[in-house]
Amino acid sequence: MHAAGDVRVEDRPEPTIVEPTDAVIRLAATCICGSDLWPYRGVVPVHGQAMGHEYVGIVEEVGADVRTLSVGDFVVGSFMLSDNTCEICASGFQARCAHPQAGGIGGMQAQRARVPLADGTLVATPGPPDPDLVPALLAASDVLGTGWFAAVAAQAGPGRTVAVVGDGAVGLMSVLAARELGAERIIAMSRHPERQALARHYGATDVVEERGDAGVARVKELTNGLGAHGVVEAVGTQEAFLQAIGMTRPGGHLGYVGVAHEVQIPGIRLFHAEIHMLGGPAPVRRFLPDLIRLIWDRKIDPGKVFDLTLPLEQAADGYRAMHERRATKVLLTV
Amino acid sequence: MHAAGDVRVEDRPEPTIVEPTDAVIRLAATCICGSDLWPYRGVVPVHGQAMGHEYVGIVEEVGADVRTLSVGDFVVGSFMLSDNTCEICASGFQARCAHPQAGGIGGMQAQRARVPLADGTLVATPGPPDPDLVPALLAASDVLGTGWFAAVAAQAGPGRTVAVVGDGAVGLMSVLAARELGAERIIAMSRHPERQALARHYGATDVVEERGDAGVARVKELTNGLGAHGVVEAVGTQEAFLQAIGMTRPGGHLGYVGVAHEVQIPGIRLFHAEIHMLGGPAPVRRFLPDLIRLIWDRKIDPGKVFDLTLPLEQAADGYRAMHERRATKVLLTV
Repeated sequence: MHAAGDVRVEDRPEPTIVEPTDAVIRLAATCICGSDLWPYRGVVPVHGQAMGHEYVGIVEEVGADVRTLSVGDFVVGSFMLSDNTCEICASGFQARCAHPQAGGIGGMQAQRARVPLADGTLVATPGPPDPDLVPALLAASDVLGTGWFAAVAAQAGPGRTVAVVGDGAVGLMSVLAARELGAERIIAMSRHPERQALARHYGATDVVEERGDAGVARVKELTNGLGAHGVVEAVGTQEAFLQAIGMTRPGGHLGYVGVAHEVQIPGIRLFHAEIHMLGGPAPVRRFLPDLIRLIWDRKIDPGKVFDLTLPLEQAADGYRAMHERRATKVLLTV
Repeated sequence: MHAAGDVRVEDRPEPTIVEPTDAVIRLAATCICGSDLWPYRGVVPVHGQAMGHEYVGIVEEVGADVRTLSVGDFVVGSFMLSDNTCEICASGFQARCAHPQAGGIGGMQAQRARVPLADGTLVATPGPPDPDLVPALLAASDVLGTGWFAAVAAQAGPGRTVAVVGDGAVGLMSVLAARELGAERIIAMSRHPERQALARHYGATDVVEERGDAGVARVKELTNGLGAHGVVEAVGTQEAFLQAIGMTRPGGHLGYVGVAHEVQIPGIRLFHAEIHMLGGPAPVRRFLPDLIRLIWDRKIDPGKVFDLTLPLEQAADGYRAMHERRATKVLLTV
């Protein structure tokens, strides 16, 4: 991305092993993230950046210290690099790994890529996947892992009512996750007929079209005036964040995964809400082994969030389609 | 309090039983809360308000539906009314009880008072307390219960490092609570020699005088660069809140109980902090039975937070002493 709105597919230097903990992978598929629209729309600055942080592919080369992966393995990786051994990783927060090389990965909208901290970032599938599983495995790399984290942070589980703010790919994946985690009732906030249908497919029991204070009022109506036990915020705007706070019952749990660039939370509102909150970049690596197993066993089908598939060369068209909301999420074939 | 800075002790109508769930108590002691200084300093408006929400006393009268209390019982009450039976109370969040009569109590800087929802708000002690236990029991009504809630929200426990922002009465009580809950290391943020000494008495293992970014840096130095497992925010200012966020390690727990009137939390900062948060008005009722037992058995001595005792008639002097930071917390004898 050379500038806001300016996406080009160009030749770049071939990736190589730099550190002994690196791997080089050949991408099988990649995709465009809702968060890629922040720079595309000029909300965050961009000055010539290799885009992409969601990826599945085949290991082509490993550094001397890589122990859990072999050349030829099909792997799914987290969008955040982690050693998966430090104290923070051990506590389940791999997206904030304390290793000096940790941080966000980039440049995955590509044919090949270097993955630092390969053992702690990548997880191999049980074997080469059936081609129809590739989109689902790709979803695990971020959008499913992020939706899952949000649902876990919202403490979705048996007997719980979970409400999801945001009908984008992450919101839809939170609906799926809440269902898998056993939530009794799942309220999807959406006014988009196709996304409503997909939300219901993934397990939503109720759809609420109202937003803001009206959305809060409607969710309270549906929950004996108390609010939902758990709420997922998967948008990242001021209105969505305050709505999510308002929809959470006292003592309930809010999981927020929308990148909150523009949000300012009034402390006194949070104080009186008296809710548990947890969010941020998802520690996808924590969930990857389980998510891969669920996909492999065909228990979940997150691949349906991709509603447009384009070859990598047409990435610019993919960005445009998501920006104009003609597509929820674009898969790029490599 | 007639206006900011204008506290007067006046005759008011005698309290009576209004609802069958009420009790009328004769106060044994009451006190002035740090939060009473918000209106005193003009930060929140006040137009003639009966002050006080911390209280211990003897039941003088009970309504027809009161079941757990009898005339003559010595009771400690929460500063928030609760039925202790609704779904929110059952989940441990009595400060946000869903009962229509629930909410904050007031007018406890008095000789006698009506307590609605008596069964769900008051807890009787095992018998008449020794006089030297009265300050400790009074502390349980808010300042100890609030500090305890903050330490629980910060998940103080064995093997954990807990840092406490705020050396007022609530902060000191959080230090006590963190120690009782088994925290391995307790860092008190204070530059006030007497409060530092009291923090050490209550269990602080380290005292940090730096504030703001320097305070964050110092706590990180003390915690292998990671930040504390748990942090208590017991001030309620912007600087203190952001400092508390910065001191919490990724995946750690922040318990905030400072009334955050003036705080605005940048969403993106919270997003990247990736911490658990819980706070608000403490559900003191949840903790009262345990706290009374610990006090009764002389296992904890929270009464030391009162460093000035005045008769109720001199309440205005007490407010002035706390406002000018000549006293941490003022006990008013009745």
